[in-house]
Amino acid sequence: MADRTAVEAALLETQTFMEETLDLLLPRPDGPEARLLEAMRHATLGGGKRLRAFLTIQAGRLFGVDKRALGRAAAAVECLHAYSLVHDDLPCMDDDDLRRGKPTVHRAFDEATAVLAGDALQALAFGLLSTPDIHADPFVRAELVVRLAQAAGPAGMVAGQMIDIATEGREPDIATITRLQRLKTGALIVFAAEAGAILGHAGAHQRHALIGYAHDLGLAFQIADDLLDAEGDVEAMGKAAGGKDAARGKANFVTLMGVERARAQAALLADQAAAHLESFDARADLLRGLAGFVVSRDA
Amino acid sequence: MADRTAVEAALLETQTFMEETLDLLLPRPDGPEARLLEAMRHATLGGGKRLRAFLTIQAGRLFGVDKRALGRAAAAVECLHAYSLVHDDLPCMDDDDLRRGKPTVHRAFDEATAVLAGDALQALAFGLLSTPDIHADPFVRAELVVRLAQAAGPAGMVAGQMIDIATEGREPDIATITRLQRLKTGALIVFAAEAGAILGHAGAHQRHALIGYAHDLGLAFQIADDLLDAEGDVEAMGKAAGGKDAARGKANFVTLMGVERARAQAALLADQAAAHLESFDARADLLRGLAGFVVSRDA
Repeated sequence: MADRTAVEAALLETQTFMEETLDLLLPRPDGPEARLLEAMRHATLGGGKRLRAFLTIQAGRLFGVDKRALGRAAAAVECLHAYSLVHDDLPCMDDDDLRRGKPTVHRAFDEATAVLAGDALQALAFGLLSTPDIHADPFVRAELVVRLAQAAGPAGMVAGQMIDIATEGREPDIATITRLQRLKTGALIVFAAEAGAILGHAGAHQRHALIGYAHDLGLAFQIADDLLDAEGDVEAMGKAAGGKDAARGKANFVTLMGVERARAQAALLADQAAAHLESFDARADLLRGLAGFVVSRDA
Repeated sequence: MADRTAVEAALLETQTFMEETLDLLLPRPDGPEARLLEAMRHATLGGGKRLRAFLTIQAGRLFGVDKRALGRAAAAVECLHAYSLVHDDLPCMDDDDLRRGKPTVHRAFDEATAVLAGDALQALAFGLLSTPDIHADPFVRAELVVRLAQAAGPAGMVAGQMIDIATEGREPDIATITRLQRLKTGALIVFAAEAGAILGHAGAHQRHALIGYAHDLGLAFQIADDLLDAEGDVEAMGKAAGGKDAARGKANFVTLMGVERARAQAALLADQAAAHLESFDARADLLRGLAGFVVSRDA
């Protein structure tokens, strides 16, 4: 298994690579719609852990997928993720002022531009996955689109966000919170890993191993996020923190389980995630190491 | 050419068919996310001219595409269109209370649900085009997605909406308004017709004839809409009308050209649209008739 330093170095490398890749793939501000294109860039460039991109790239490398195709797929996932953050941050949703240490899109621009930039980023994500540049086989391209549409749509991410809003101020149980997170953040994290497998024409067994890995990793990641929300400070998170969910009356894993049980659960899920990868050789070491990393990170 | 009665009958038939098709393809309200799914249904069912669906279906029929595939493609176009209306109507955009004679989604539900319902409808549109149910050939599916992503994204519909907002209260010229409309409404209208051609494996010549037709038809339709905005009454339009653009300081074809020149321009574009179809036989008569219909409609 790769140690913490190796994982951190690989994540940093992915951050640099994705910054370059997204800069190339995002439209350049021009014409009377320049404001839209600037807002799209504000939302996607200059920050972010690029965890999802990392999953796509590392999963794809298991099957020898070339870096350019993986960059495009990872960019699509990051655009989709960025759109969801822009809309989540809107005044009618979480009403957040800061994201990744910068003003949110509706604060840096305005609300209408934020709605539109999110909308355009979603369309761009589907565009990136469907053009022949990503893969010569149209079946692979169509399959990527099918799976992203499922992960992002009304049976995936958006449903999770709706449940998140619907349960605010109520007392949901662990089962509800688990389903909420599986939909809201888990579905896209699973797609991120699966995209690498689809591009690599992975067999069903290997594809399902990666899906299982990403599912557990996503949940571990979310619990770690809730632990950081409860304990973290604003500086480390780059967004307003310090028990924000609790202050809003939002239940999460930590408010429901307590810090100690949540920490134990996250560690268990991280081990379980890595265990899904047993059929892969040493090329999966960074993915194995990532599982431990996401539950021990401090930002 | 089909006469007005034939076009109206065919449009009515499409409205009924699309109501059934969308009802089948939209997810049924269930679980804690039921509110999202209800809002998606509110936005797409129970009204609408279904002009875009009609274009997809009629274009596909020129090439013998089966009705089920056309229904799916037309549903994708209508979902995409409905999402754009839901987001356009938001308080931070046009802030409209009525749409198709019903409360807008953010009035019937709330703002957050309206943002999410629009987001989910966009994802659903891409999902409908990419699953094998629509066509056995994955190249056709990927091509549909590529073209919808272009039509809907930052070089298409969303850019048009951004320009629309950016030019509000200013004095844009005819060239700016024409580009705005080509992007904001024209791109999706063109895609609607093109989707039928893509499903039918149409040759380049026929595909471009349909693109030219839909381009001119879309512009004629928009000018007719602006004429209705200037002259129409609330009852006929099913939304607040009566020179609403003028009252908001929004320039449109009529405020820039005057009623008489706008009416002449719309008629010219309708003739030009029909002329693109000269290489097609009598099966294109409804499309020819539609061109005249859109500039003479009263709602």
